[in-house]
Amino acid sequence: MKQVCFGVDIGGTTVKLGLVSREGELLDKREFPSFRDLHATFDDIADHMRQVMTAFPDCQCVGAGVGVPGPIVEQSTVIHCANLGWENVNVAQELSSRANVPVRVANDANLAALGEQWQGAGKGCRNLVMLTVGTGIGGGIICDGKIIAGSTGAGGEVGHMPVPFHTDWQCGCGRKGCLEVTASATGIIRAAKQFSPFKEMDKVTAKDVYDAAAAGDKNAVAVVAESSAALGYASAAISCVVNPEMILLGGGVSAAGSALLDPVKAAFKAFAFSSCAETRFALAQLGNNAGIYGGAALFFTE
Amino acid sequence: MKQVCFGVDIGGTTVKLGLVSREGELLDKREFPSFRDLHATFDDIADHMRQVMTAFPDCQCVGAGVGVPGPIVEQSTVIHCANLGWENVNVAQELSSRANVPVRVANDANLAALGEQWQGAGKGCRNLVMLTVGTGIGGGIICDGKIIAGSTGAGGEVGHMPVPFHTDWQCGCGRKGCLEVTASATGIIRAAKQFSPFKEMDKVTAKDVYDAAAAGDKNAVAVVAESSAALGYASAAISCVVNPEMILLGGGVSAAGSALLDPVKAAFKAFAFSSCAETRFALAQLGNNAGIYGGAALFFTE
Repeated sequence: MKQVCFGVDIGGTTVKLGLVSREGELLDKREFPSFRDLHATFDDIADHMRQVMTAFPDCQCVGAGVGVPGPIVEQSTVIHCANLGWENVNVAQELSSRANVPVRVANDANLAALGEQWQGAGKGCRNLVMLTVGTGIGGGIICDGKIIAGSTGAGGEVGHMPVPFHTDWQCGCGRKGCLEVTASATGIIRAAKQFSPFKEMDKVTAKDVYDAAAAGDKNAVAVVAESSAALGYASAAISCVVNPEMILLGGGVSAAGSALLDPVKAAFKAFAFSSCAETRFALAQLGNNAGIYGGAALFFTE
Repeated sequence: MKQVCFGVDIGGTTVKLGLVSREGELLDKREFPSFRDLHATFDDIADHMRQVMTAFPDCQCVGAGVGVPGPIVEQSTVIHCANLGWENVNVAQELSSRANVPVRVANDANLAALGEQWQGAGKGCRNLVMLTVGTGIGGGIICDGKIIAGSTGAGGEVGHMPVPFHTDWQCGCGRKGCLEVTASATGIIRAAKQFSPFKEMDKVTAKDVYDAAAAGDKNAVAVVAESSAALGYASAAISCVVNPEMILLGGGVSAAGSALLDPVKAAFKAFAFSSCAETRFALAQLGNNAGIYGGAALFFTE
């Protein structure tokens, strides 16, 4: 019988659910709403899992790996999940009691890193770091093929690393000068909004700023350079701790491609310890499916 | 038969060799010179191991865990060891071929952290970081009871983390503004030497500066405060990566005790992500024996 596993990525508005084979093939994928009502959410997930398994009668399900946007302890419990208003929810218990399969849980950014390590840009690499640069900045640290979850689930929370950029700008976490204040899409937009033409625009996206930089707008060039420098600086600091073989850049801002990757690499070289100078940088490859692959990897990789 | 293991800490001038029981008892300890001639060094180590085992005829030796001051790959090979002039030495092979026991090798600072985790200030704690503050700054990262060695052996090299202190001061590594430039004994002395009475003294130690600070010397107080702030800043950055339960301070400067510990904790609180705020700080307990215990821990802890 073919062995398969569910990867379940619970977000603030939707759940992405995929069925993945031990060989890393995505056999089925669906998306449906998530709710603040955790019972409704887990009932739906279990229902979808049953529907999927009915369509794959010759497969044996070994478990479900679940990603949740919050700090996770003991591969089971999310301490708090701001997006869904959940506090101390034993996700493993909620889902395994409904779906009758073993459930393992991880932080969503950590799980995306594990997915990229198993089937994405980090394939074959046992030590990697992934920075997910979107509205905020998430991170995942993989050492010897395993997620570093940390003692209170804050492993890989590199968006809140102190960096010497915009140290007077407030972060959502309560501190000032965190990495994501400068380098997230939100930070890029905030910096650009200081200048025309962004100042006068109703809605600015990070893509607008990258496009303007590509077109030669001086202020946009400076904003992009600074956000990349902050990411390179943080990457150098991270490398002195866990010395990864690769650093992957993912999330919405990574759509900028080499316009993000190249200056981050250059800043890294300027700040990195010589023994880490050969660290490779690459763009993540799995996009929104990274968490699904990561969930399956919790069961299919050791 | 009682199971024992050798812990061997190879330094730039001496080798510390200890015999440790599975229960964590240090049964024998000796110290002898290390040499740039690696054959002479390993011949001596193997001789001493034989002598020790003769004195413990009812013990079974399970192996030797060896610490070397340099980056280690594959628990066996030191890539370069500046203090001894060694390049690409397979320490495991050199010693196991002479001593006929399994040999595992780690960086000396990493091994000290593992020793503290097994039998010192971090006993019972699976996730910890140790900062060894001496002439330079070494670090050891223990996640789930295991050393994070990194892809090129630079795991835990936090002395070379970029920090926003003395960013114009040259570090021995070739970069500027590394943590150890500000926070090592060397850095403390360099900063103090800018001011009287240190400027006029032939020889200044970090202890002199701490003593002067305790006596109320304004400049010494500022130097101590800045070096502690840099350590607290780096600790906050490290915590966003691996989120340890504890951070231990060891090395020569840690003799200052709470005069080091308290301001480092205070700076950490100012820079740390809220989820890491409860990280405990403590002084290392095993002193010069930490590496010996760490060597034994490579065999006696899983």
